[in-house]
Amino acid sequence: MDPTTKINLPESELERVVIVGGGFGGLQLARKLAKSDFQVVLIDRNNYHQFQPLFYQVAMSGLEPSSIVFPFRKLFQGRENMFIRMAEVTHVDTSAKQLQTPLGHCNYDHLIVATGADTNYYGNKQLERLTLPMKSVSEALYLRNSILDDYEDALTTPSYQDRQELVDIVIVGGGATGVELAGSLAEMKTHVLPKDYPELHVQEEFDIYLVQSGDVILKGMSAGSSAKALRYLEELGVKVILNNRVTDFDGRLVTLKDGRTIPSQKVIWAAGVKGMPIPGLPEEAITHGNRLAVDRHNRVAGTDCIYAIGDVAYMEEPDFPEGHPQVAQVAIQMGEHLAKNLRYRHLRGEVWEAFSYNDKGSMATIGRARAVVDIPKPEFHFGGILAWLVWLLVHLFAILGTRNKIFVFLNWLYNYINYNQSLRLIIRPRRGTDTSAG
Amino acid sequence: MDPTTKINLPESELERVVIVGGGFGGLQLARKLAKSDFQVVLIDRNNYHQFQPLFYQVAMSGLEPSSIVFPFRKLFQGRENMFIRMAEVTHVDTSAKQLQTPLGHCNYDHLIVATGADTNYYGNKQLERLTLPMKSVSEALYLRNSILDDYEDALTTPSYQDRQELVDIVIVGGGATGVELAGSLAEMKTHVLPKDYPELHVQEEFDIYLVQSGDVILKGMSAGSSAKALRYLEELGVKVILNNRVTDFDGRLVTLKDGRTIPSQKVIWAAGVKGMPIPGLPEEAITHGNRLAVDRHNRVAGTDCIYAIGDVAYMEEPDFPEGHPQVAQVAIQMGEHLAKNLRYRHLRGEVWEAFSYNDKGSMATIGRARAVVDIPKPEFHFGGILAWLVWLLVHLFAILGTRNKIFVFLNWLYNYINYNQSLRLIIRPRRGTDTSAG
Repeated sequence: MDPTTKINLPESELERVVIVGGGFGGLQLARKLAKSDFQVVLIDRNNYHQFQPLFYQVAMSGLEPSSIVFPFRKLFQGRENMFIRMAEVTHVDTSAKQLQTPLGHCNYDHLIVATGADTNYYGNKQLERLTLPMKSVSEALYLRNSILDDYEDALTTPSYQDRQELVDIVIVGGGATGVELAGSLAEMKTHVLPKDYPELHVQEEFDIYLVQSGDVILKGMSAGSSAKALRYLEELGVKVILNNRVTDFDGRLVTLKDGRTIPSQKVIWAAGVKGMPIPGLPEEAITHGNRLAVDRHNRVAGTDCIYAIGDVAYMEEPDFPEGHPQVAQVAIQMGEHLAKNLRYRHLRGEVWEAFSYNDKGSMATIGRARAVVDIPKPEFHFGGILAWLVWLLVHLFAILGTRNKIFVFLNWLYNYINYNQSLRLIIRPRRGTDTSAG
Repeated sequence: MDPTTKINLPESELERVVIVGGGFGGLQLARKLAKSDFQVVLIDRNNYHQFQPLFYQVAMSGLEPSSIVFPFRKLFQGRENMFIRMAEVTHVDTSAKQLQTPLGHCNYDHLIVATGADTNYYGNKQLERLTLPMKSVSEALYLRNSILDDYEDALTTPSYQDRQELVDIVIVGGGATGVELAGSLAEMKTHVLPKDYPELHVQEEFDIYLVQSGDVILKGMSAGSSAKALRYLEELGVKVILNNRVTDFDGRLVTLKDGRTIPSQKVIWAAGVKGMPIPGLPEEAITHGNRLAVDRHNRVAGTDCIYAIGDVAYMEEPDFPEGHPQVAQVAIQMGEHLAKNLRYRHLRGEVWEAFSYNDKGSMATIGRARAVVDIPKPEFHFGGILAWLVWLLVHLFAILGTRNKIFVFLNWLYNYINYNQSLRLIIRPRRGTDTSAG
């Protein structure tokens, strides 16, 4: 597109806030500004908000993508100051206060960078090309299709060694994503796959590996919860490999740092994330983990009227001298806080308030009816079925939309009773010539 | 794959029935043989059965694909004589009684061709390349994504003429698919789009055209029902063009036989189907509409132990001297009948019974709370809300699986109350680098 084209937006006397990214932080900010005296433009490459904590259930055929994503337009129906544009922001010109997108350019008075984080391969191009990430609902769906495709292929693979590559799965990274995925995969192996694939020797042949570089899983949680989660995973049959790293993967064989090898075609990379700042922001603002250094008002270092929130932001505060954890709660609180600063303090010319994170705790679920929960104040840890019920409730309430809540709840209930979801479908949108109806 | 590779199936003393295609006919046959004294192999290019009558609701964001498809493996859990293979059958060698697939070859004692029908472009390669078909759930999903993508693009298209191409939709074919799609699109235009896209002039600018070559729509139905359906569509604002045909389409402009032109980038082709016989079947068996001529036992002309059922089969019987309509009921009844002939008469050496079709009637729905129903015996036609309720019930009961029934019912209920589904999502499985969470 001609770079002189202007993105189609009405002229307005209001100051324009452009939010790039509609994840937890960007969406919270947009909602809080939806009835304010700003013109708000939300730009995202998708037309929906994604509920990241449940991606792993989409990958494991436990939920449909539509149950955990929500279309922006529906959310902002009737908000006359809100404009939604589906585009990828390719560049920002900070002196002209202008963004570039394939739809044209767009000026801003205030720019909010809420672009989040993407999978970090630490510069290893081969791992980037050959392993599977899970940082979007599209990637989760791709992973689901890959897993199911490989089980189908295993049926017609007579050699034991070749079959191992298809049915063994290696998960790299012992954070919440890796642990929840491993637990869920282990449940599927026990309860679903033997019934779906009676021709395969599921219990004997299917292995799930979880490789973690440190000596604990769920590093950010309490020692007690980490240990409990490890025990849960091992009870479920997951082979947890601690203090090790994947050093090489050629698409068929995984090599670990200690020289051990695992034959597998599917390596799920959940070993780290890096911030995704918009190209054009000042180099000096980019800091730890490719994040943007921000002050306590979320202002990006060395810029004017540009703010970063959520996973892409790096803010130090007395209680978090090495920055905040990259979790939904931080993003949501930053979005809400910045909205207040813009709406009440900026528009009235008052002094902005500094952000401080209120840690409400963390949790992870490990398969069916097991989870671990840490509450910080007062410090309290618990696990087992009670933790699992707390996990269910918290996630159910956090999902956007009544319909989604009902559908997720029914799916979980159905799954809990039946051990056996009927979503093991390999569906890809296709333009033509794909019929097989009899 | 090496053509000498044999598809991995256990040796058995039972006769092997290979069913190609798990649509309405193939699936019914497979279910009836699932506990019989045959080894049954079901080969389909997908791992799920598709409920074709509701594809249009997937395309219109009214239902999720997963609600109207059902995984074969789940359906046949615990059936030890059933084997499911996901593959495309590329050729049949009738003398060797052998099928070729990318997974290897497969011998059969009895071959059932239940491959159905695909979109018929009547040899027009340009229309095949540029129009959108809707004969699978993947195609319906692609259509949904295209429609939503184009509305997004319309927002940033300042020229009225260019915008017309993006928002106007031309449906070709006045059969049930075209009519139901047009009705559903008209409801979306009235109730949903103005709220989602307040920046666009939906009522003034968005047009839905239905082009039908004959002088009635729903040709197979009674004259009364056809007329009623036409009136319903026109009340909903659909521009129905009768006695006309699309003669040219260059991707941006549709030209009709009478010289009229319509600017549109989206032409949905629902104008006809053709049978999809397996390559290698005798030429002389291929007849009207690329279907396979079969006798009253569904035996394909000029072959031995090869049977065709459903849309791909062409059978004449006294009440249907020009063959049966290509509808689900015929396929289901043929599948059930052939299963009985194989299971009871063939295995016991008895004389086979001839098939005869029991027409239970036909129906079509046009938007919200309107439908037409024809009952043949005793002849009876009705429309309106009662017909719509009958339509809902019949389709709900026909969908496989309790979970699917519940989810479709809840979606319909939610839609009926809210006029406003939250499934307007553009989701595509993607391997990597697709994050935009904030």
